[in-house]
Amino acid sequence: MNFDRIYMALLHYPVYNKTGEVVASSITNHDLHDLARLNATFGLAGYFIVCPLELQRKLAGRLIQHWLTGPGAEQNWTRKEAFQRASVVAELAEVKNAVREQTGQGPKLVATTARGAGGQIGYRALRDKMDQEAGQSWLILFGTGWGLTREFLDQEADYLLKPILGSGDYNHLSVRSASAIILDRLFAIDRTAD
Amino acid sequence: MNFDRIYMALLHYPVYNKTGEVVASSITNHDLHDLARLNATFGLAGYFIVCPLELQRKLAGRLIQHWLTGPGAEQNWTRKEAFQRASVVAELAEVKNAVREQTGQGPKLVATTARGAGGQIGYRALRDKMDQEAGQSWLILFGTGWGLTREFLDQEADYLLKPILGSGDYNHLSVRSASAIILDRLFAIDRTAD
Repeated sequence: MNFDRIYMALLHYPVYNKTGEVVASSITNHDLHDLARLNATFGLAGYFIVCPLELQRKLAGRLIQHWLTGPGAEQNWTRKEAFQRASVVAELAEVKNAVREQTGQGPKLVATTARGAGGQIGYRALRDKMDQEAGQSWLILFGTGWGLTREFLDQEADYLLKPILGSGDYNHLSVRSASAIILDRLFAIDRTAD
Repeated sequence: MNFDRIYMALLHYPVYNKTGEVVASSITNHDLHDLARLNATFGLAGYFIVCPLELQRKLAGRLIQHWLTGPGAEQNWTRKEAFQRASVVAELAEVKNAVREQTGQGPKLVATTARGAGGQIGYRALRDKMDQEAGQSWLILFGTGWGLTREFLDQEADYLLKPILGSGDYNHLSVRSASAIILDRLFAIDRTAD
């Protein structure tokens, strides 16, 4: 697996809200931190926070700068290190461009969802693909709110990962929990050991 | 796996702070929600928030009641359902007693840590044990702050799980991410499918 070519992004648009409307969601402080730490733990090439709301992006940028170069950098090096590969941008096109600039190639997009559907790819199958196509750039997409819209998934995703299933009907993990599980299933080096 | 006999607890004492002192940590709103959702997703029997600080327990209790019986119950049923098996208590002894009352048997304690050490058990090995000893009660312990103290782990844990390893040296996941990964590795029903 070529981790230098694998990126992740947290999308705040287009996602559903609780009542099924398509909205831009607000940026959550704990999402910034937890996903940046996941990106650092699994050694991925970069983490993009994507939000069309300018004020939200400014706030997220200030939070990240606090930990990178502000008082936080002295206070907690684990946050500084986690945020070193984090960027805040307005839309997905910017992420694709950034990956293309950094790797010389546009990424294949892997989307995630809590809803089962036909044609979804399993974790082992995707790992095998990523191993086989080590020269390829990849971008894993996570949605906030009640998940990325069907239209977006249909139009943008090269692959759609199978949802995480528990033992019952409850199927409402936070994006922090879901992204942790998904990245672990795809990228943990000790997965097969035991 | 007998999920009716498997419990989880989030411990706010005794844990290290950043400088290595042993402290009682504050309760974090996102921990309450994310771990309650994990508990519901994987169908475990109960989730205990353990904190010796009385004011913190009162605050957590009020937050949970808001989603169980307050205005939140109408507003978001996924939070209501997640919190139905959550309890806030002062110390680990209360958790053990509650499990003993509910299952007729004190639990075996499985602790988690980010630090590698000798004698730790792997995920597959623990799953096998839990499958074989299906009549046994189990309690999975997660620590806040910079992790459960060595003394506590030595004295209390029947088993200590191996830490989660990424591809590099960075080893600072949030307890929200770590608990998601650990529960998935132990309890996901589709783990072996792909």
